[in-house]
Amino acid sequence: MNMREQVRKMKLDAPAVAATSAQERCAALAAMAEALENNKEAIFAANEKDLQAAKKSGVPEAVKKRLLFDETKLRDAVAGIRMLIELPDPLGKKLLVRELDEGLLLQRVSVPIGVIGVIFEARPDALVQISALCIKSGNCAVLKGGKETAETNRVLFKMLYESVCGAGMPAGCLAQAELHSEIDELLSCDEDVDLLIPRGSNNFVRYIMEHTKIPVMGHSSGVCHIFADKECDPAMSIPIIVDAKIQYPAACNAVETLLVHREIADSFLPAAADALRKAGVALRGTGEAAQILEKAGQAPCEIMGDDEFDTEYTDLIISLKVVEDVEEAIGHINRFGSHHTDCILTGNDRTAARFMQMVDSAGVYRNCSTRFADGFRYGFGAEVGISTGKLHARGPVGLEGLVTYKYLLEGKGQTVGPYASGEKQFHHRDIQA
Amino acid sequence: MNMREQVRKMKLDAPAVAATSAQERCAALAAMAEALENNKEAIFAANEKDLQAAKKSGVPEAVKKRLLFDETKLRDAVAGIRMLIELPDPLGKKLLVRELDEGLLLQRVSVPIGVIGVIFEARPDALVQISALCIKSGNCAVLKGGKETAETNRVLFKMLYESVCGAGMPAGCLAQAELHSEIDELLSCDEDVDLLIPRGSNNFVRYIMEHTKIPVMGHSSGVCHIFADKECDPAMSIPIIVDAKIQYPAACNAVETLLVHREIADSFLPAAADALRKAGVALRGTGEAAQILEKAGQAPCEIMGDDEFDTEYTDLIISLKVVEDVEEAIGHINRFGSHHTDCILTGNDRTAARFMQMVDSAGVYRNCSTRFADGFRYGFGAEVGISTGKLHARGPVGLEGLVTYKYLLEGKGQTVGPYASGEKQFHHRDIQA
Repeated sequence: MNMREQVRKMKLDAPAVAATSAQERCAALAAMAEALENNKEAIFAANEKDLQAAKKSGVPEAVKKRLLFDETKLRDAVAGIRMLIELPDPLGKKLLVRELDEGLLLQRVSVPIGVIGVIFEARPDALVQISALCIKSGNCAVLKGGKETAETNRVLFKMLYESVCGAGMPAGCLAQAELHSEIDELLSCDEDVDLLIPRGSNNFVRYIMEHTKIPVMGHSSGVCHIFADKECDPAMSIPIIVDAKIQYPAACNAVETLLVHREIADSFLPAAADALRKAGVALRGTGEAAQILEKAGQAPCEIMGDDEFDTEYTDLIISLKVVEDVEEAIGHINRFGSHHTDCILTGNDRTAARFMQMVDSAGVYRNCSTRFADGFRYGFGAEVGISTGKLHARGPVGLEGLVTYKYLLEGKGQTVGPYASGEKQFHHRDIQA
Repeated sequence: MNMREQVRKMKLDAPAVAATSAQERCAALAAMAEALENNKEAIFAANEKDLQAAKKSGVPEAVKKRLLFDETKLRDAVAGIRMLIELPDPLGKKLLVRELDEGLLLQRVSVPIGVIGVIFEARPDALVQISALCIKSGNCAVLKGGKETAETNRVLFKMLYESVCGAGMPAGCLAQAELHSEIDELLSCDEDVDLLIPRGSNNFVRYIMEHTKIPVMGHSSGVCHIFADKECDPAMSIPIIVDAKIQYPAACNAVETLLVHREIADSFLPAAADALRKAGVALRGTGEAAQILEKAGQAPCEIMGDDEFDTEYTDLIISLKVVEDVEEAIGHINRFGSHHTDCILTGNDRTAARFMQMVDSAGVYRNCSTRFADGFRYGFGAEVGISTGKLHARGPVGLEGLVTYKYLLEGKGQTVGPYASGEKQFHHRDIQA
């Protein structure tokens, strides 16, 4: 069966997967966790082959880290699955119960999305995590991993698939694609794949977004800003900036650009620059920023072009710019940002309210680190990803991002004719769900 | 300014439109309604020019009906706007209020989507209706109407635009595109247009969906089914089938295919066929269906190929098929349907539950007409459209389909470091919104 036929079949099997009970799905998750624990050695052996191959082909160190699947990653993966089991069932929630008229009852009920294509680079832990999220939410998943972890993925997939089927899930719930050519084939299955979730580098995600008509959940970049307003408290503000940059610089919610209000720039910018440099951060900025640092007796920052402010460093580098006021800060963020997470540091409630209203991002923060943008930190229990799109789900996405709803209408023979003629009227009475 | 520049500018203006108060937006709607009533003559004169041009170029009668903008359509448009004014504000709703930790407050608040591209064929009333929906929900809209109603659209747009700006809306809230070439330009603005709403024929909507990476809300076809189960009550069922077919055959929620359980086919199918024929409906079907009609002493139906069951007639024609049981009905609907609205007629609760669980459509009904699939009938007050997509909004979509949300997080200097190290813990306490 080629990819297209496989996905078509999965689409027709999807309602059976959707019809499984919460108990069945949780039993499948428990079986997954157990299989991982009982087959550690086989997984680590396969991963070792991938690591050897990576060493031979001179894969960069950062990638090697991501393709490693060791004791710690396995423990985290198992813990993630066990946590998922405890979360409430996302399916069958009655989102609306409304009597349209006597004996004509409308219900809006949460259901799985259907068939989800998961395409990821390198990280075998993503295979485990996303399979588990899809099983929990009654979705079918086609999984396509990167060739760098082909051995690990093959072993992991076989183990996970056998365990969920053994626990009673329908055979169509999971499938694996192994050939690179299957990515483009998968991207073209817009009739049968309802959603794509890519996990990987910015360029990888951008490629996916640009080559498919299937809706994509995720983000290709995270260009997050912090604006230090003239009424910010430096003692509170500078640690926030440092945390947002250095706590995990490769994360999408790390800050890339610091904007400083001109009225405080002469004192605030050198203080912030000093703290950042002490934390190992390299500074880039406008000519004005460089001059202010020099005037304060510091080394100037590297001067950057105005058009470079859309750069995501994912590294210990930050861009600096002085702005006239909150309006210029808002304009800069909406133009150069990626609509991910942006923050204002200020003691002024009105300025904060203006900023939070006008910045068009999934997360708009005041007086705290941008690094809080995360499904676990928000208390969602599980994270599907962070979306910078505006439809369906925005920002950190929990399990509810993997469900949609359908309308169920039950009548006793009602036809539309009498309502259209005015003979009968709807009364639209909501009933406590 | 070309389309791309215009849309770019609109994107940057969108936060100002989003920041208008409910009062300002409702005042703008009131001004729209008033402008329409005060300028009837100019509108009708422009529409007359379009009608004359259509007559000359031999436009089909059905299209002429859609491009007519007369007293009745104006009255309906004004009534629609006045109703919209009365609906609750969809913006600024607190969807979640959660204290992540002492003094770290997360809120999820409803906000407009941003920039909406509206592309419609023929119908000038769609221009009025969708502009009003966008204004109510604080969205910016780029409107592109068909060339058949160029005169009417120009007059309507100018009037609506001047009235909303006069009432205080920011200048970037609405824009009109007039050149046909601008459609493809608009379809390519995926960085700045957040959502497309097409209104027109199936082929038109399909063209839009196939030529853009912008999310599209709507449906290209409505192939709705009714399945008469062996345990249905014919006296209740046949009027439902007739209503679903003839009450408004051009609607997307009209039934296109009748599936009948084999056990009752010999009696039910001739009875249903007779009622449908008396209502002026032409019948097509499988060889088996034709034979059953002949055996009952009726004229056979026209015999159709199995692969034609995905046809949307939008006319007084229906497809007939005999199926073995509810499972075959479900399989047929999931394969040939458009995931719009499908119905089972049965007195058996278990069979109904199975059907409603397994049919993968936006609306799954029991014992009532498919024609109920409509935002007004569901009590949404306004209808943006009907979506057969699964992300964001599904089925009839009310104003909530034009909003998304953003996360606001307010702190007192919190950084992520202490939470990552385990020194501090989140307590995730939900607060009544």
